[in-house]
Amino acid sequence: MSAAEQTLHEYLELMKKMKAYEEALGVLYWDMRTGAPRKGLEQRSEAVGVLSSELFRLGTSERMGELLAALSEPSVFAGLSRIHQRSVEENKKEYERSVKIPPEMYQKYVVLTSQAEAVWEEAKGNNDFAMFRPYLEQVVDYTKQFVELWGYQENKYDTLLDSFEPGMTVGQLDKVFGELRDRLVPLVAAVAEKKPPNTSFLSRKVPKERQKALSEYILKEIGYDFQAGRLDATVHPFATGLNPGDVRVTTRYIEDDFKNSLFSTIHEGGHALYEQNISPELIGTNLCTGTSMGIHESQSRLWENMIGRSREFWERYYGDFQRMIPEFSDISLDEFYVAINEAKASLIRTEADELTYNLHIMIRYELEKLLINDQLKVADLPEAWNEKYKDYLGIVPPNDQLGVLQDVHWSGGGFGYFPSYALGNMYAAQMMHAMKQAIPSFDEHVRSGSFGPIREWLTEKIYKHGRVLTPSEVIRNTAGAELDPSFLTDYLQRKFSEIYKL
Amino acid sequence: MSAAEQTLHEYLELMKKMKAYEEALGVLYWDMRTGAPRKGLEQRSEAVGVLSSELFRLGTSERMGELLAALSEPSVFAGLSRIHQRSVEENKKEYERSVKIPPEMYQKYVVLTSQAEAVWEEAKGNNDFAMFRPYLEQVVDYTKQFVELWGYQENKYDTLLDSFEPGMTVGQLDKVFGELRDRLVPLVAAVAEKKPPNTSFLSRKVPKERQKALSEYILKEIGYDFQAGRLDATVHPFATGLNPGDVRVTTRYIEDDFKNSLFSTIHEGGHALYEQNISPELIGTNLCTGTSMGIHESQSRLWENMIGRSREFWERYYGDFQRMIPEFSDISLDEFYVAINEAKASLIRTEADELTYNLHIMIRYELEKLLINDQLKVADLPEAWNEKYKDYLGIVPPNDQLGVLQDVHWSGGGFGYFPSYALGNMYAAQMMHAMKQAIPSFDEHVRSGSFGPIREWLTEKIYKHGRVLTPSEVIRNTAGAELDPSFLTDYLQRKFSEIYKL
Repeated sequence: MSAAEQTLHEYLELMKKMKAYEEALGVLYWDMRTGAPRKGLEQRSEAVGVLSSELFRLGTSERMGELLAALSEPSVFAGLSRIHQRSVEENKKEYERSVKIPPEMYQKYVVLTSQAEAVWEEAKGNNDFAMFRPYLEQVVDYTKQFVELWGYQENKYDTLLDSFEPGMTVGQLDKVFGELRDRLVPLVAAVAEKKPPNTSFLSRKVPKERQKALSEYILKEIGYDFQAGRLDATVHPFATGLNPGDVRVTTRYIEDDFKNSLFSTIHEGGHALYEQNISPELIGTNLCTGTSMGIHESQSRLWENMIGRSREFWERYYGDFQRMIPEFSDISLDEFYVAINEAKASLIRTEADELTYNLHIMIRYELEKLLINDQLKVADLPEAWNEKYKDYLGIVPPNDQLGVLQDVHWSGGGFGYFPSYALGNMYAAQMMHAMKQAIPSFDEHVRSGSFGPIREWLTEKIYKHGRVLTPSEVIRNTAGAELDPSFLTDYLQRKFSEIYKL
Repeated sequence: MSAAEQTLHEYLELMKKMKAYEEALGVLYWDMRTGAPRKGLEQRSEAVGVLSSELFRLGTSERMGELLAALSEPSVFAGLSRIHQRSVEENKKEYERSVKIPPEMYQKYVVLTSQAEAVWEEAKGNNDFAMFRPYLEQVVDYTKQFVELWGYQENKYDTLLDSFEPGMTVGQLDKVFGELRDRLVPLVAAVAEKKPPNTSFLSRKVPKERQKALSEYILKEIGYDFQAGRLDATVHPFATGLNPGDVRVTTRYIEDDFKNSLFSTIHEGGHALYEQNISPELIGTNLCTGTSMGIHESQSRLWENMIGRSREFWERYYGDFQRMIPEFSDISLDEFYVAINEAKASLIRTEADELTYNLHIMIRYELEKLLINDQLKVADLPEAWNEKYKDYLGIVPPNDQLGVLQDVHWSGGGFGYFPSYALGNMYAAQMMHAMKQAIPSFDEHVRSGSFGPIREWLTEKIYKHGRVLTPSEVIRNTAGAELDPSFLTDYLQRKFSEIYKL
């Protein structure tokens, strides 16, 4: 072996070791959320702490720094495969971010956010923003200090965006969100003028066992591989990819809200299809995961909303649905389709429909940007929040519990994350457009429940590449163009004009 | 901090770290056995490998050796608490065992046993001992080499026994097993002369859901804490103590053999009661576990057989049972009690009843002792096996699949383990005797399903001490005497004389 080969070998071994720790931690987290006994959790967090520390130590070790430096030498780097090049690039980026934060500072921050999350939960319960405020102020302060340490070019917020959506900037987001807002605000207003559809039957009681059978059936239909995953029940649904052969999803069963479990299942199933179809050659590397939060979210949204809430999908499955859920035998396909697509301005993001959801995100994006750039004080946040809801959605939260206190993200320092949700919708619409051009019989496939060609196209363009392609490479690879919000607005205009007869 | 305090502190931190790895591995193993997707297992074993290696490295590190040596210095050791003394003793023993085996040799042995297990499975399936023989020969050879490296005093087999039952020797076992054999062989023969009870109704189909509800109910009744554990289904039932707040059990549901799930549940529940009631002060130390395989088994047998198959138990629960399992509404308590206690010589250890089980163990013990002391060749094992079955149980296996190939233990090198099962029965009977003297209303408690006083007594005498007490200290602590097999033989004589009207 040459010196360069030896360096690469050592680097790959170190990365494999880190992935082993990540996988073990993934199982521990999954276990804690799916039924680990309450009384064992304190001791379990010891194990999580020891493994996390070791993982962090490996990733920020001097040796890792030396290996990355050696492999980044232009003459060495040029000789690496594309996969190894991308692996080094991504690891180097994370390594540099991590070592720029002094360990004591990071330690204090970890303690702070864990306290802040607990305080947030109590403050939300008590509808008491004042209680949460000092903690949020500190979290914002730390975040700003991190940005200073990491550095930034145009806008401080760019650095935060980059953690979740590599390459995304305020400049680009302002533009696309601006276009989105200009088209969506009037569309939401037009829908609000119309008579709301009948949705009362959606709250009919459906036993948990029937919902579970339905979730399993639909997951299988869209091509989720149960030999490479499992479905469990949790309070908050999630998907976790431990490795491509073990991608688990969860859902939530609510007796008088069957659609909660069904659409959560399809949503998490979309995330899972991405992870199950990553190329096996990426296993054991840091590239064996979705390329960004936004691209990941595009897949959950594409399957949940653009396929799972489409008329074509229900033309295929409504008969099966009625057989499995006889509670709906007197409801026509048309009534059902309109009801599951009801759009109306609401206060809570996580319960928002496909149309209004994006406005919830834009509000948060604009507030975060102001906070990080010292243009808004935490103390003034509730008022700013309520104003934005009035402007964008035409409704004002009656209290902070239903307003600024609703999301957990900020207590944990997750600034820059929210835009991923709306990016996911935009990416998804643009991908769908490209896919329908590439597969002219797309609607026919959905109408006959043959998702193979759809999954294969997505795998070829997106899934198999893991993190080898950057988010913007993924969108260029699928749609042949940069991110363009008009595909989402056109899609929403078309869909909701038809449903609401605008 | 004094130097000794610092040493102790470092030692305790190192041990806590090792326990964290053990706990993470425990979750990974549990997960692999309770439903981890098949396609992810190859990658999962990478994670298990990395964590196991790190655990082994920590436990055999030079630093561990130095800390143990420093803490074992008489002047330092004398100043340690009882718990810390015992922790050092146990760790030192394991450390010395581990470092005596050259790493390359151990590595080869690990590869061999993993091959041998796979070959055993195939050989068993094909009823082909010749296929397994060369692997078993090598495993036996390695085992003998290990014994040479570890050293031994009286008998080579003592060193193997000591791994599973610290302090137990061939001298003591020969004596107690001899007494057991002398009393049990004629008892088994006497029972065989009697008309077998009607057991046909035991194979009535009971839906899995009903069996599950019954298992959950009975577990709760005996005091298993579901906030510190959970019940799942697996092919082979097991209990695993991750920490006292998370002790999980599994069982196996077979439609036409409901008693399989019920008694497996109580058996694993007995193991779990032990682990759930270990004193919290032992958490994070190597003493937070059962003190030996034999003592552990005593608790599963005590709850499964001596309580769970007792007439008093069913006087309390047969009504509830019939309500939950209406398939048995026409069967009287008496018919039921006799049927679940049927005793008859059989070929397969894992399916043996309470009475004949011990003879299966003695056969294996005697054969292992001969193998390790070069008094029997692997090639002659099948014949020796069949002869022993004839002598002890009066039946001869028609083939090796139902004979010498039935157990997995030897392929993995588990020599010295089998005696634990019979020791468990002997310990349990002796403990029961002592408990009944200490709690005169014992039978009344069982008859009314109030297991609190029983659990408390066992906790006080056994459970809470974890590995602080050695096995012989545990039996002295509970029964005020050394291990004495007459309690088991008296109990079996009494129980089966009554059932079979001898």
